[in-house]
Amino acid sequence: MSLHTALSAVDTGLDASLKRLFDLLRIPSISTQAAHAPDCRAAANWLVDTLHDMGFTASTRETPGHPMVVAHAKGPHGSPHVLFYGHYDVQPVDPLTLWHSAPFEPVLVDGPTGEKEITARGAADDKGQVMTFIEACRALKQADGTLPLSVTLLIEGEEESGGINLLPFLEANTEELKADVALICDTGMLGRGLPAITTMLRGMVGEEVIITAANRDLHSGMYGNAARNPIQVLCDIVADLRDGATGRVTLPGFYDGVPDIDPQTRALWGKIGPSDAQSLGPVGLSLAAGEQGYTALEQTWCRPSCEINGISGGYEENGFKTVLPAKAMAKVSFRLVGTQDPEAIRAAFRAHVQARLPADCTADFVAHGGSRASLVPTTMPFLPPALKALEAEWQQPAAVIGCGGSIPVVTEIQQALGMDSLLIGFGLDDDRVHSPNEKYDLSCFHKGTRSWVRVLYALAGKNPD
Amino acid sequence: MSLHTALSAVDTGLDASLKRLFDLLRIPSISTQAAHAPDCRAAANWLVDTLHDMGFTASTRETPGHPMVVAHAKGPHGSPHVLFYGHYDVQPVDPLTLWHSAPFEPVLVDGPTGEKEITARGAADDKGQVMTFIEACRALKQADGTLPLSVTLLIEGEEESGGINLLPFLEANTEELKADVALICDTGMLGRGLPAITTMLRGMVGEEVIITAANRDLHSGMYGNAARNPIQVLCDIVADLRDGATGRVTLPGFYDGVPDIDPQTRALWGKIGPSDAQSLGPVGLSLAAGEQGYTALEQTWCRPSCEINGISGGYEENGFKTVLPAKAMAKVSFRLVGTQDPEAIRAAFRAHVQARLPADCTADFVAHGGSRASLVPTTMPFLPPALKALEAEWQQPAAVIGCGGSIPVVTEIQQALGMDSLLIGFGLDDDRVHSPNEKYDLSCFHKGTRSWVRVLYALAGKNPD
Repeated sequence: MSLHTALSAVDTGLDASLKRLFDLLRIPSISTQAAHAPDCRAAANWLVDTLHDMGFTASTRETPGHPMVVAHAKGPHGSPHVLFYGHYDVQPVDPLTLWHSAPFEPVLVDGPTGEKEITARGAADDKGQVMTFIEACRALKQADGTLPLSVTLLIEGEEESGGINLLPFLEANTEELKADVALICDTGMLGRGLPAITTMLRGMVGEEVIITAANRDLHSGMYGNAARNPIQVLCDIVADLRDGATGRVTLPGFYDGVPDIDPQTRALWGKIGPSDAQSLGPVGLSLAAGEQGYTALEQTWCRPSCEINGISGGYEENGFKTVLPAKAMAKVSFRLVGTQDPEAIRAAFRAHVQARLPADCTADFVAHGGSRASLVPTTMPFLPPALKALEAEWQQPAAVIGCGGSIPVVTEIQQALGMDSLLIGFGLDDDRVHSPNEKYDLSCFHKGTRSWVRVLYALAGKNPD
Repeated sequence: MSLHTALSAVDTGLDASLKRLFDLLRIPSISTQAAHAPDCRAAANWLVDTLHDMGFTASTRETPGHPMVVAHAKGPHGSPHVLFYGHYDVQPVDPLTLWHSAPFEPVLVDGPTGEKEITARGAADDKGQVMTFIEACRALKQADGTLPLSVTLLIEGEEESGGINLLPFLEANTEELKADVALICDTGMLGRGLPAITTMLRGMVGEEVIITAANRDLHSGMYGNAARNPIQVLCDIVADLRDGATGRVTLPGFYDGVPDIDPQTRALWGKIGPSDAQSLGPVGLSLAAGEQGYTALEQTWCRPSCEINGISGGYEENGFKTVLPAKAMAKVSFRLVGTQDPEAIRAAFRAHVQARLPADCTADFVAHGGSRASLVPTTMPFLPPALKALEAEWQQPAAVIGCGGSIPVVTEIQQALGMDSLLIGFGLDDDRVHSPNEKYDLSCFHKGTRSWVRVLYALAGKNPD
């Protein structure tokens, strides 16, 4: 076989690949909403059937939450063994009214950039990316009857909802899942046409806080001024989380374990990376709003932050209601870098709330996951061939970059399986991940699939003939 | 006729009165929700039919919003003429899950105080109170074939939703609506069994502010830190509205026109009024949370305040979503006293927001009504006989008190018709007005009806026997 036979198979099979992706996108596998549990299982079953049909031994594995998908295919004797990780679950779709087409009825549309776009919830995150790898395996098998190396796939269903069952699953199945390197397709490129491998990922701590004052909703005329207003209490607490002038998080000890960016990396990013206006312009912003003294790219790639992801209390509909509510709620997340300790930060947040809680109020907390930042050593031997393979496909040097998002599995794989990960993804900043009208460029899907063919070929130690 | 014949008619007719009240309570006349516009009209029609059957000339009158109900019945030649004002519209019912029975299926239940309670949205505010007056008129007519004085009723349908159509209606119908005194039944008693006439009412300014940052929802991993978070901006703005230490509103000029409480009134309220623990204990609170240096009663009766009545942004459902929303919204109200100017305070609030708005953000505002505080002169000649009539019914001295709520009609009647109002109501602090499980004590309905019989008789200049 030759590499080019497999790449041709990708090209000629694109329509069929796309059809399969659409089938998967039609399954509304929203993991955080209990009503969609059967859909999560349906997505897992779809993957098992698909991989089985391709010749993998594939099965779902039960967890206390949504099932895992595990599949194996052996390569030639002595070839390396890779573990591919992805997730089949997706984010909720609200606000539904902002979608131009139904989130689970995928369509191919002409995007404003001139690219064809696959539009659906999960198009980029992560079903589209998972399918680039699966379709690459399909093309390699088609070209040569077998894969150039041994492949295990682990596709989970709780990445978007805390993912507490992944680490126990890894720990319970170390023999089966151990490989030479993990491959993860859940990240982005440096920009359109600019391939990249991500080596720094932020960790995350999610917290929900509910402030309760009176034992029922009150009339704000009768009680306003005298009765404690939990929305006001919550706003005071949230306002105190960040210093308005410096943009820094105020929790004591928050910056413990946050490394300085080394000047060389900083200079490189300054050269190849987008400016603040370029990063933020497409979403209607112009200035890096976070920690002052850092660019937008630095703020998201290698500086920690605190975000309010949701807030709710009182009357939120149209019109006005003079209510003084009994409760108010906020969902808060912290993005972590370096060796910041998620549980120490969770404790510091709760102490921050308790210290600001007036008499007559109580605070309740719900933990929504916690994971450390992930660092991939840039010395790992699989990195150079993978970068070279990407460069060959995109005809652009492949960059080593950071990523603001959290992919806890990187740390969990290191911890449970003792393996490092190569994070190779084909997402773009304008993919509207987690937002209405999520999309994945057709060219990212197509060239992403071709990229994996080249990367697997290169990791197998073969010359690109 | 004698007063006692009419009072007996109230007693023997109580079951029938209650049945009529329940009929009115079954109509879900929520004025702030457009879907309930037909129900508002149905409530107006029900009142017209009921008053017509009692011998009033009664009709609905169109406005740009919900219709007004106007009815007239003549008393003896030379008798005084009163204008009764009430409202048939009610507040929204959310959160519905907290109701023990359906809000528009009124029931009579044994309350925790040992009193029988009429439970339904509008039971106290204001359908139950309106019906005390109507049923008093019925008993007086039944006892003597006619009323002891001339009565005009004006019952509106937009009190709970800004009420912008009332003043133009008053101004357009001054000849028809002009009387010697206005009677308003939309306030409370000093406590269970303690009758009162309210002479101070706070005004109100309602504002909604929407902060917009990015042009779409963003992934908080990809953009968190760099992209401006409108929830954070909103919380900073809200936190700055009040001084945490003094509880005072920080808007420049906010306290212009706020009178000091006179020491005599203060001493009287300190003697007859409830303590902070008594006022706030029933709702699960113990400390007056507002402007320091004032009791809970003073904070609500004669000090201005700022309350957040609703807040919303990002992901508010169960679970967690790492979204950085494009928008966040708050509904804010200010309660006004003395001569505070609603429009000056609205402008100061908007300036407060604009001054704190970071680059890349915009603020949009929606005005939700504005009215000055109302003061009834304690020198008006109708006040002493009304106080005496109440004392006769309740066998307790009737007090002159303040009220934290806003009843803009008092000022509007002064302005358009040049008349003062007697605010006589039978609500209690534990009526859960604007909250789930709103109720009106059966004894308040019954003795309230009897009270109006006595008050109308007294205002007609007749001796109670």
